[in-house]
Amino acid sequence: MNYPWPEIGTPLVEIVTPMPVIDEDRLAANIERAQAYCHRHGKAFRPHIKTHKIPAIARQQLKAGAVGINCQKVSEAEVFADAGFDDILITYNILGAAKLKRLKALNERVARLAVVADSEAVVRGLAAAFDGAKPLAVLVECDTGGKRCGVQTPEAASELAQKTAAAPGLRFAGILTYPAIGGAAQVEAFITRAMELLAAKGIDCPIRSNGGSPDLFSAHLVPSATEHRAGTYVYNDRSMVRAGHCTADDLAMHILATVVSRPAPDRAVLDAGSKALTSDLLGFSDYGMVDGFDGARIVSLSEEHAVVDLKDCRSAFPEVGQMVRIVPNHTCVVSNLFDRMVFHRDGIVTRVEPIAARGTVW
Amino acid sequence: MNYPWPEIGTPLVEIVTPMPVIDEDRLAANIERAQAYCHRHGKAFRPHIKTHKIPAIARQQLKAGAVGINCQKVSEAEVFADAGFDDILITYNILGAAKLKRLKALNERVARLAVVADSEAVVRGLAAAFDGAKPLAVLVECDTGGKRCGVQTPEAASELAQKTAAAPGLRFAGILTYPAIGGAAQVEAFITRAMELLAAKGIDCPIRSNGGSPDLFSAHLVPSATEHRAGTYVYNDRSMVRAGHCTADDLAMHILATVVSRPAPDRAVLDAGSKALTSDLLGFSDYGMVDGFDGARIVSLSEEHAVVDLKDCRSAFPEVGQMVRIVPNHTCVVSNLFDRMVFHRDGIVTRVEPIAARGTVW
Repeated sequence: MNYPWPEIGTPLVEIVTPMPVIDEDRLAANIERAQAYCHRHGKAFRPHIKTHKIPAIARQQLKAGAVGINCQKVSEAEVFADAGFDDILITYNILGAAKLKRLKALNERVARLAVVADSEAVVRGLAAAFDGAKPLAVLVECDTGGKRCGVQTPEAASELAQKTAAAPGLRFAGILTYPAIGGAAQVEAFITRAMELLAAKGIDCPIRSNGGSPDLFSAHLVPSATEHRAGTYVYNDRSMVRAGHCTADDLAMHILATVVSRPAPDRAVLDAGSKALTSDLLGFSDYGMVDGFDGARIVSLSEEHAVVDLKDCRSAFPEVGQMVRIVPNHTCVVSNLFDRMVFHRDGIVTRVEPIAARGTVW
Repeated sequence: MNYPWPEIGTPLVEIVTPMPVIDEDRLAANIERAQAYCHRHGKAFRPHIKTHKIPAIARQQLKAGAVGINCQKVSEAEVFADAGFDDILITYNILGAAKLKRLKALNERVARLAVVADSEAVVRGLAAAFDGAKPLAVLVECDTGGKRCGVQTPEAASELAQKTAAAPGLRFAGILTYPAIGGAAQVEAFITRAMELLAAKGIDCPIRSNGGSPDLFSAHLVPSATEHRAGTYVYNDRSMVRAGHCTADDLAMHILATVVSRPAPDRAVLDAGSKALTSDLLGFSDYGMVDGFDGARIVSLSEEHAVVDLKDCRSAFPEVGQMVRIVPNHTCVVSNLFDRMVFHRDGIVTRVEPIAARGTVW
């Protein structure tokens, strides 16, 4: 079976739909903008590669000045280690013999590898697996309001850091958080207090890693952070425009789709369903935005169909066989649905990259 | 990079998470139950392979008595044609030169191929692409309340059937619908009226194809339907239990996950996020059900984390490092996230099958 990836030089209008496509110039501008901001404010920038899962894009990010990359799972990191990346932070609690064994192998071949931990159980597992030949760098993950993983208080952070530092095969490398949107003050307060407690114990805290694309351009409001991690900024999506992180001109990803039916005057059906867009709502009441057709709303998704409600659409919606562009609610999850990503400039395909880490959830 | 697919004979407790797994006995029972029901009620049964996307499972379905298979897109059908399937219905409006060319190639090699159409634009495209050497079978898709694709009235169905029948390269093969849940009476009324109109024009309507898993066991309430199509029934999911289609004992798919954090007494984090479960809510207010822990609710998903709210959980939830089983809200979309599917019986892996049609959205 022959997947319909386009040749370089193909006009976008000839692409077989549904297909996510990335605007090269907007991609490059997003990469440069984030890096310039972090440079201006004295923060190291560490892009999260989950949004693209493509080594070539991560290389663009490093070339712009990123200090290294952020992966979410061991298997995702392995793909990037295979591609030669030598500074990888895995922001996940790694548990179980199989994953620890793979992590040990990674630590042998990745010059600068680090992981996170938010509990004694995780630290114990890491400590048992690492024997000290090349200590594993561990950051204590702190819950500064995101209410996902993380120790709950600066005191707990200090205690876990001490346990980490006491393990011969581990190296306490600092603290990390994935904050709530708009939570800069909480992050700063947590980091500051944790550092006080650690200093009182004579423990150095060289890395204070903050994260998130929504508040990327507010990272300077957390002066104590040394680095910022962000993934979504590289392509952007509807949720990033809503968060005030970017404008519509910074949207690099669109999903090209074809109108396959106009069953009624106020209804259109597109060939991009949840298997091309995902059902991620991210707080929106519809499943994506059809570019250029204000008031058209993708009100429901089947796996291979998008049903568009046109009753409030102010322009004449395209007819059967015509192409539209959809802005996804959430860009990162689209990358994980496809094996390759198409890039374009001036309406022409420039390259097609393997999404090398697609499906790496372990 | 070496994906952690388990060997045959591996105990489930050793599987690297997150991992969807299929109970062989429940799978076989689901296949048999649907086939027996259809046989009892004189309906041909045509499974929709989108739920598993695995040729070996489709072969099990054919062996049980299915008349052929249902695919949703041309590229999905190509994978199954490659695997030797000779009776394929593609329930999609096929448009554009590239897809029509691939459809023509399929028609040459698939003994019994059929597609649907719900507009003159689609029929015109099909008619222009097919030259009559081997006519393409076309079913007119009817909207009987599902409000997705389909002609809106029996009169419109008759008109489109006439246009189809008039094209030398096409063969009008009947009508088809994907109904609203609980819409049997509407389906029967539409089919009956459409057949009257067609008979009055001397047009035979041999196939009347109904569909959907929720109402699979009410298919006898549509006496005029000759066949029933269903996908989800093969694995089942939380939405099928809610619809009364099956019980919890018929749930063949679970996603194995590990508790990676217990940050607070009323919170747990699992390693199965939207990239293992999808964000499909299907009307539920939470993202999946943790088997055996009533009151535990997956209240939010990140891409690689599930946050579980334990405040109403009546049992002691597992600790960091322990495994849980998640019943997905929607099984079909999980298959599309992974490259392989693990099967088991009595807690032991029996086989690992390539999800051959993963990602085939064109």
